[in-house]
Amino acid sequence: MHLDIAVLEGDGIGPEVVAQSIKCLRSVEETFGHSFTFKNGLIGASAIKKTGNPLPKETLKLCKSTDATLFGALGLPEFDDNPKAKVWPEQGLLKLRKKLELFANIRPVKVFPSLVKQSPLSKTQVQNTDLIIFRELSGGIYYGDKSNDEDKNSATDTCTYTESEISRIAHLAFKSARSRKKKVTLVDKANVLETSRLWRRVVRNISESYPDVVLNCLFIDNAAVQMILNPSQFDVILTDNMFGDILSDQGSVIAGSIGLLPSASVGLEHAMFEPIHGSYPNAAGKNIANPVASILSVAMLLQHFKMNEESDAVVAAVLKSFSKKIVTPDILGSSKYGTNYVGDFIADNIM
Amino acid sequence: MHLDIAVLEGDGIGPEVVAQSIKCLRSVEETFGHSFTFKNGLIGASAIKKTGNPLPKETLKLCKSTDATLFGALGLPEFDDNPKAKVWPEQGLLKLRKKLELFANIRPVKVFPSLVKQSPLSKTQVQNTDLIIFRELSGGIYYGDKSNDEDKNSATDTCTYTESEISRIAHLAFKSARSRKKKVTLVDKANVLETSRLWRRVVRNISESYPDVVLNCLFIDNAAVQMILNPSQFDVILTDNMFGDILSDQGSVIAGSIGLLPSASVGLEHAMFEPIHGSYPNAAGKNIANPVASILSVAMLLQHFKMNEESDAVVAAVLKSFSKKIVTPDILGSSKYGTNYVGDFIADNIM
Ligand SMILES: CC(C)[C@H](C(=O)O)[C@@H](O)C(=O)O
Ligand SMILES: CC(C)[C@H](C(=O)O)[C@@H](O)C(=O)O
Repeated sequence: MHLDIAVLEGDGIGPEVVAQSIKCLRSVEETFGHSFTFKNGLIGASAIKKTGNPLPKETLKLCKSTDATLFGALGLPEFDDNPKAKVWPEQGLLKLRKKLELFANIRPVKVFPSLVKQSPLSKTQVQNTDLIIFRELSGGIYYGDKSNDEDKNSATDTCTYTESEISRIAHLAFKSARSRKKKVTLVDKANVLETSRLWRRVVRNISESYPDVVLNCLFIDNAAVQMILNPSQFDVILTDNMFGDILSDQGSVIAGSIGLLPSASVGLEHAMFEPIHGSYPNAAGKNIANPVASILSVAMLLQHFKMNEESDAVVAAVLKSFSKKIVTPDILGSSKYGTNYVGDFIADNIM
Repeated sequence: MHLDIAVLEGDGIGPEVVAQSIKCLRSVEETFGHSFTFKNGLIGASAIKKTGNPLPKETLKLCKSTDATLFGALGLPEFDDNPKAKVWPEQGLLKLRKKLELFANIRPVKVFPSLVKQSPLSKTQVQNTDLIIFRELSGGIYYGDKSNDEDKNSATDTCTYTESEISRIAHLAFKSARSRKKKVTLVDKANVLETSRLWRRVVRNISESYPDVVLNCLFIDNAAVQMILNPSQFDVILTDNMFGDILSDQGSVIAGSIGLLPSASVGLEHAMFEPIHGSYPNAAGKNIANPVASILSVAMLLQHFKMNEESDAVVAAVLKSFSKKIVTPDILGSSKYGTNYVGDFIADNIM
């Protein structure tokens, strides 16, 4: 198979981790006889520095014209700390998700048996955790009308959802549950928010078309507790953009490091693959960042294109790195292996 | 001192836990020579069932005319599961907070040395945790314009903050930090939300008047992780209504049970004291609910009225119940002590 892949390295540790993913894709190419081409685009702080724009037109065009996008990470603290800034790196990612209509961000959270000890939670709590979060990614408070009125000294964000925005991701979640443990948990704040009440109504209606799947509803405050206390109760979690952002980061506590969790952002026409972690600027250039989240995102990319055997081979190589303890220091504080070495090991073991 | 106290038991386990708090206040009355009068009001599901209104006028009048309100818990699942309901229990609490202008919800999270083992997190992680959350309580997305348009099949919630809403709670947070570890962490999502950017601007300005206090900013997704990984890094957390709801529930994971965490909701004229837990309907009437969150809310009430010795005496009695293992089953699964027995023990040990 031939795939054209847009590569957006972004900021901080982005370039380093993406470099390892490309090694892995090269290895898949060779082992399985595919052909991948990689085309780089600018995004985030590095794009602002070079062009003034966190998402230059060329980048958007590139992502629209390729088969898939591999994204690293973005953001730099110098932008967070400037409340008067008119542009900042995250706007690039948010705009890209919107323009590509990537409405579903799929974030699996698994506990790898060989890493159970790395989780700060107890073994009984986390073992058997195998959940997947379907986070709505192109609507909600991230994209509603906003204002920040310096004169009135007030600011507003608006959260809007329509039935169709909810139903398209809900169907994906129910379909996924069908091939898994047949349980969907809708996370919302229906005792306070009207948008949550709409989510409940729409999702309940849809659930009637999936009689083999059980639907539960949980308030976000309780869900944030349950994710830690008893994560193995979950199968598929379905939630909105903001709640999904919070809950999926919490998933990293279960897995043992935020450097382990991949994601796929999908729409009807486009798909992007990105670690859930940020740009971690303090680690940039130090060869200590964990490349596994990016590499597992590549496994999701391969699966997306039905290259299941290839995807399994990437996951198997990652598991081998765990069992041989070829891991970065976020996993084993005492580890002497760097980003590059771990990337090489995994790429070499894709077979 | 004489205090008139409005008592709103609410639903589920509300009445049972509040009954223990009243025992404790009676004991304080006797031991320290005060006089407290208690006047009951309806709220929540029980108010809806009797009057059709989750916050009957008389209840609001009662809370306005008394010195403080002691609140239990509210909510029943039959209301959550009815998306067409026009009234539901939580509206009573939200309206009460708004009408009493309780703009700051203060939620301390402490790990009691004798309960460290009860936390699902490791001892090294949680020990030394002593943080306090200042959650804005009468603004934000809880109270902005809402709509739910059945024809258009769309719903909207609006989050608005003004400078003055932010600044009044920010001052409380900085003042509290001054008497503590001198650190305020503002939790927001300033890389996405305009309201968060306003929070950052206002809070940064205010921080200049507190040069002895260090201000940090953290994104909510990261904060939700840090609350679990390394809670002892925090001193005072300052955040908006929705993020505060989520983060403070997470605090219960640190403490070991949601049945342990009290809160004070304060405004310029009124104050209400309430456990952070919900109505836990499955436990209602079974004499298993933990009364400690409600009793520690009483300790916050006493402190609010500068009865510091009295407040300390209540806390000391609670600590004694922990060290004697006179605790409910949420703390020690094997515990044979019920709500009533624990309440009696604590009340009897206020001295
Ligand atoms: C960088 C930021 C805008 C982004 C988000 O909030 O969606 C990130 O936290 C994520 O989860 O992908
Ligand atoms: C009952 C509910 C409306 C309430 C809230 O979200 O504020 C509760 O979760 C709390 O934290 O006090």
